[in-house]
Amino acid sequence: MNELKLTTLINEIEDLNAAAMADALQHLNNLTKPPGSLGRLEDIAIRAAGISGEIAADFSKRAVIVMAGDHGVCEEGISAFPAEVTPQMVLNFLAGGAAVNVLARGAQADVFCVDMGVNADLKHEALISCKTRKGTANMTREAAMTREEAVAAILSGFELVSRLAAEGYRMFATGDMGIGNTTASAALCTVLGGMTADEAVGLGTGINEERRLHKIEVVKRAIACNRPDAFDPIAALAKVGGLEIAGLAGVILGAAANRCLVVVDGFISSAAALAATAIAPKAAAFMIGSHLSQEQGHAMLLRKLGLSPMIQLDMRLGEGTGAVLAFHFVDAALNVMREMATFESAGVSRE
Amino acid sequence: MNELKLTTLINEIEDLNAAAMADALQHLNNLTKPPGSLGRLEDIAIRAAGISGEIAADFSKRAVIVMAGDHGVCEEGISAFPAEVTPQMVLNFLAGGAAVNVLARGAQADVFCVDMGVNADLKHEALISCKTRKGTANMTREAAMTREEAVAAILSGFELVSRLAAEGYRMFATGDMGIGNTTASAALCTVLGGMTADEAVGLGTGINEERRLHKIEVVKRAIACNRPDAFDPIAALAKVGGLEIAGLAGVILGAAANRCLVVVDGFISSAAALAATAIAPKAAAFMIGSHLSQEQGHAMLLRKLGLSPMIQLDMRLGEGTGAVLAFHFVDAALNVMREMATFESAGVSRE
Repeated sequence: MNELKLTTLINEIEDLNAAAMADALQHLNNLTKPPGSLGRLEDIAIRAAGISGEIAADFSKRAVIVMAGDHGVCEEGISAFPAEVTPQMVLNFLAGGAAVNVLARGAQADVFCVDMGVNADLKHEALISCKTRKGTANMTREAAMTREEAVAAILSGFELVSRLAAEGYRMFATGDMGIGNTTASAALCTVLGGMTADEAVGLGTGINEERRLHKIEVVKRAIACNRPDAFDPIAALAKVGGLEIAGLAGVILGAAANRCLVVVDGFISSAAALAATAIAPKAAAFMIGSHLSQEQGHAMLLRKLGLSPMIQLDMRLGEGTGAVLAFHFVDAALNVMREMATFESAGVSRE
Repeated sequence: MNELKLTTLINEIEDLNAAAMADALQHLNNLTKPPGSLGRLEDIAIRAAGISGEIAADFSKRAVIVMAGDHGVCEEGISAFPAEVTPQMVLNFLAGGAAVNVLARGAQADVFCVDMGVNADLKHEALISCKTRKGTANMTREAAMTREEAVAAILSGFELVSRLAAEGYRMFATGDMGIGNTTASAALCTVLGGMTADEAVGLGTGINEERRLHKIEVVKRAIACNRPDAFDPIAALAKVGGLEIAGLAGVILGAAANRCLVVVDGFISSAAALAATAIAPKAAAFMIGSHLSQEQGHAMLLRKLGLSPMIQLDMRLGEGTGAVLAFHFVDAALNVMREMATFESAGVSRE
């Protein structure tokens, strides 16, 4: 039932507006700079035109959606931090004290914090509750969640974006919080991205190489236990994913359906993007990359997604911290479209 | 006389404040994130503390200094654009219509446009005139300028920064404008950076590979004509440099002497940084990199400088456009220091 609804919603995703993109390129080539010399800022401006249908639409109302969930696989000792940090950090987001809050304020973005499945009873007036279950099951022993739960999580993310888009939000950054979620993301990379466990598994929030080797074994056991199918991304999310990862896949699909720009953060968000584009390939056109995480699998994952990182700050925090920094570049691209002089208006000679 | 003055000024450059840097690191490690997980934002915060002596000083008064100069070597046909574009673009900067103006407004930075040696009579109330001569000589036939002129250009940049620092400016981005200046910068890379002409010469604002091969020959002829000494950076600037490049070297030296942070832009600014740090190695501690230009020699030049680019937008425009975007990251780093919750204040468990 829910899956039919999801299929219907996804079918609403349309292509970019090619005419608006051509207009944007023509405008860029009249501006006082060598053609193409603003590089990927020009690509962003063209993409934004394709999404909005205008050459310099207003993307100033923007949000970071930070989705939190717990992971049963933490029982296997794959993280440097205890699982209790997930709810603690949710309260920190809600109080405005986390890194993503600070960076979002600097980029004039609102932060929405969503409980997708934290293993604690959280109450806060600003918390958006989309809790399907209290954390996933231990994926080395059983499926992380049921297919119905995965669909419900995706739909939650999709519907949240639809609601925010109706309120005027035009741009979203994806953010995650969930102790253990690099393990689930790595598992998704092996299933949906064709990566080996050794390629996909990194040091997370700060384990050592010995723990990383253990984490690789944990991912392999999860795959062996669940046998996810590369051609069924919803089943992959259910079997070896996470509630916040499924929710973020829904955010990306929702952004595409609502013709909003979605900026993909680091490793976990990119795993969600891998699932989202496997579910609906047309969603890819509405995504841009942001930073290259220090998490080792991220570079390969971005290549699989066809995204190029614009920011190299060696960050490995998640929360949307890389994506929200990229909002500054989107602003720069759109300001260029709105404010730069043309060769004609400035009396500058062309080549 | 002037050179003695320059030597005296340079001797005022001091080391970073190690105690403040240690305090900054300690503060960072108390914030609610895995240690080091904000990557190079943390490095910036520590660097800023070392420069200012405070863990979160106010760097909000900032400027892009765009220095313009013409190049006699344009006679050799090394640029896609005619030399008349230099003065035309200066007027565009002064009117606020160039890319750097747009990006500077977005980063709350003021733009100062300096005529270091444009080959035209420019009058504008906002133009800062430090014109030593009307463009350099053709360096394939003679020295681009005299040693005295190079020193005067360096001093102009130094003194401008001292004046702005006295007005409260704490952070500078370097910007350049000068048709032909990738050729002069490439020549400096071969002399002061030990690069081959083939490594140092790129496509500039948009020449083709055939023109690039010609440009390599032009650089080799300039070197053969002038025989600059790798251990005399002022002479190298005079023989194969440029007026705006010498001025920008002065900006970097002045920033270091005034304990300001200086963000180095692309290929031309990095060539200026190479000269500045050859003149005064201690200045390096006050510089941070910004973007990786598409100009082919930039990656190697940055490695020689020990700078890592944070931004990869495939830009190749100069003007300070890459550096001014990095101001957003400096803001982010300092906001993290000021606004993030600690483990204790937020009640979050440590690893």
